[in-house]
Amino acid sequence: MSGWDLLITNVHLATLAGGEGHGEGESHGDGYGDGYGIVRDGAIAVRDGRIAWLGPRAEAAAHGSAADERDGHGCWLTPGLVDCHTHIVHAGNRSDEFEARLNGATYEDIARAGGGIMATVRATRAVDEEALLEQSLPRIRNLLAEGVTTLEIKSGYGLDLENEAKMLRVARRVAQVLPVRVATTFLGAHALPPEYAGRADDYIDAVCTMIPALAGEGLADAVDAFCERIGFTAAQTGRVFEAARRAGLPVKLHAEQLSDQGGAALVARYRGLSADHLEHVSEAGIAAMAAGGTVAVLLPGAYYFLRDTTPPPVAALRAAGVPMAVATDCNPGTSPLTSLLLALNMACTLWRLTPREALLGATIHAARALGLHGETGTLEVGKRADFALWRIARPADLCYAIGGNPCAAVVNGGVWRMPQVAA
Amino acid sequence: MSGWDLLITNVHLATLAGGEGHGEGESHGDGYGDGYGIVRDGAIAVRDGRIAWLGPRAEAAAHGSAADERDGHGCWLTPGLVDCHTHIVHAGNRSDEFEARLNGATYEDIARAGGGIMATVRATRAVDEEALLEQSLPRIRNLLAEGVTTLEIKSGYGLDLENEAKMLRVARRVAQVLPVRVATTFLGAHALPPEYAGRADDYIDAVCTMIPALAGEGLADAVDAFCERIGFTAAQTGRVFEAARRAGLPVKLHAEQLSDQGGAALVARYRGLSADHLEHVSEAGIAAMAAGGTVAVLLPGAYYFLRDTTPPPVAALRAAGVPMAVATDCNPGTSPLTSLLLALNMACTLWRLTPREALLGATIHAARALGLHGETGTLEVGKRADFALWRIARPADLCYAIGGNPCAAVVNGGVWRMPQVAA
Ligand SMILES: [Zn+2]
Ligand SMILES: [Zn+2]
Repeated sequence: MSGWDLLITNVHLATLAGGEGHGEGESHGDGYGDGYGIVRDGAIAVRDGRIAWLGPRAEAAAHGSAADERDGHGCWLTPGLVDCHTHIVHAGNRSDEFEARLNGATYEDIARAGGGIMATVRATRAVDEEALLEQSLPRIRNLLAEGVTTLEIKSGYGLDLENEAKMLRVARRVAQVLPVRVATTFLGAHALPPEYAGRADDYIDAVCTMIPALAGEGLADAVDAFCERIGFTAAQTGRVFEAARRAGLPVKLHAEQLSDQGGAALVARYRGLSADHLEHVSEAGIAAMAAGGTVAVLLPGAYYFLRDTTPPPVAALRAAGVPMAVATDCNPGTSPLTSLLLALNMACTLWRLTPREALLGATIHAARALGLHGETGTLEVGKRADFALWRIARPADLCYAIGGNPCAAVVNGGVWRMPQVAA
Repeated sequence: MSGWDLLITNVHLATLAGGEGHGEGESHGDGYGDGYGIVRDGAIAVRDGRIAWLGPRAEAAAHGSAADERDGHGCWLTPGLVDCHTHIVHAGNRSDEFEARLNGATYEDIARAGGGIMATVRATRAVDEEALLEQSLPRIRNLLAEGVTTLEIKSGYGLDLENEAKMLRVARRVAQVLPVRVATTFLGAHALPPEYAGRADDYIDAVCTMIPALAGEGLADAVDAFCERIGFTAAQTGRVFEAARRAGLPVKLHAEQLSDQGGAALVARYRGLSADHLEHVSEAGIAAMAAGGTVAVLLPGAYYFLRDTTPPPVAALRAAGVPMAVATDCNPGTSPLTSLLLALNMACTLWRLTPREALLGATIHAARALGLHGETGTLEVGKRADFALWRIARPADLCYAIGGNPCAAVVNGGVWRMPQVAA
């Protein structure tokens, strides 16, 4: 008989445990909702911020009792959601460019007017830490209202040590002022800052010196780069990865979004956490990812917003057994998206992920893309008590509905909260 | 000097007045936000539920004073949004089919299993008025949270007099329990009920007898039909329109969504309020709509959800001067969408409407599609005091952001409320 801190009863559990593969050998029956690790009329117990027990409600009393017992009112309870790829800390937005383009301006017009990513770099450099936090919090609260309990935040709009450090400090502060775990990623190799125009290799040298400095301050949990014709070459990316390795940081990569640069194979060679986007990944890249244990992070918001027509090769990733995560990619230029549930709908609607795949993609596979799969992402005894409770009829509703927010409550590290959070 | 009931100050007004055309002769300057009828640092006054005055804040005191004066905290204030095409009253959802299809089931599999629109008909027939209202309110509250002050609701899942009347009574009750104006539309000619299998003309006879009965009870503000190869023919639709004319009700039509049936020209011939969908409308149909004063109601949610690849001919509609509205089409089978803001984003992103066109489409042109353009849809003295206040930097933000809800407050008929409403 255990003494628990919290017991939630009258919930249907979707543990998402033990089902992380692609379903081979599992029974999907009629295809109407199993494969989620469902415990109907269940209960889940928390002690010291971790899951202490879960099972049918009728069996709870035989296992323990809790100081705080809460009625889930028939909600579904899933692992807290994990948004594993965001640029959500930034200043300003780019709705002016959005409007100008729809009114007929070309990309060249906008670039001449100082627009594009450099507009966000200028805006982000111009504000202090406090203002940057203040501007970012409303976007982050949107995610938290939908059950997100773990959030990745990249730097990449500072592009010098001072401003990259500022962005990462703001990302760390988010976890102090809001009830969310934050994983930070240093993305100095996001774009070439104007002061290095024509000297990309020199800028990569600078990035490689920033890595140990930021690692030394404990500001970065991982290192990322943008490997693309309009970004950095595979050779330059490799130098960034070497610097990360020396600093003891894992790597991930914006790879094959617009063209195949061999980035997926490169990051897999470093046993990277994830390769992200992947619309143009090759069979060889997929095989390398499978061998390297690298997660495919799919970002349908950017695909939708850019009206891309080449979907990532979902069937090939599935066949190769590469875990697929789904994230918002929240950023002002190509994915002004602050709803992970909408990303799930887009992944199903546009790319034909199943609702089960999409939900695994925003929980356990997203956790794996951050190296946190031992800590969160499924309902299993010993993991962090990160849950979302939903007013839905079945798990697939989370992927089916467009708009609205069925989140009824959130538990983060064992602490119960309502979906909407004040700063 | 006037005595007002309510004065809202410290707001930027986007009146959307006088700009209902397609912008010819108007200055769009740099394309960064004009054309909205903007009054910066403005104020707006209400008396007896209607707009009594609006203008620069500094001039308000010279015109009157109010019993209730509210600080808009620098928000933008637009006309309340109008969702002019929904099937939002219905029972159940169809996430089970959504999931089954993604797991490989064909449309035939689903039809054999009793799915499709008939699943919603069965579910809607099976519940009483109270349960139907209860199931519909959460969806409607999603719309109201985003500043919707006027809402169209169609019947069409009852398909017999008793159940169509039940749906329309529920639609009327929505306006009693929630702060929203509701326009009801009788859509008996939505689908052929199973009891009339093989006897579509007999069912149309039945629909034509329902029209005067429902009109007599004051349950229907307009009459609609689904004119399509998989719906009803133009000839059958014409019989429905004749019955509507005899009953004194205006008509609208689901037209040319999947193929060109000449529906747009047909409804325009009846000087119909709107032709809706229109992906496959012909030049002749567009010309007829322009001549008939018929609004084009564009429904990007269904286009997105069905992965349609034929956009409606936006440039031709624009060139012909046909007013374009944008609506959610909220329905469980083809557009499970309860966010009008997302519909605006989709209209801009997928179909290249400008933010200004999209916003006119969810206000004054949507009001016109309901015959309510004299009452709501712009900020003009004498119109109903229907407003939404937004925490945004510029009007285009309403179309640019994906997810999140920047609505800070709503005024409906002069009554101030917070965005989230309890039933
Ligand atoms: Zn990114
Ligand atoms: Zn419809």
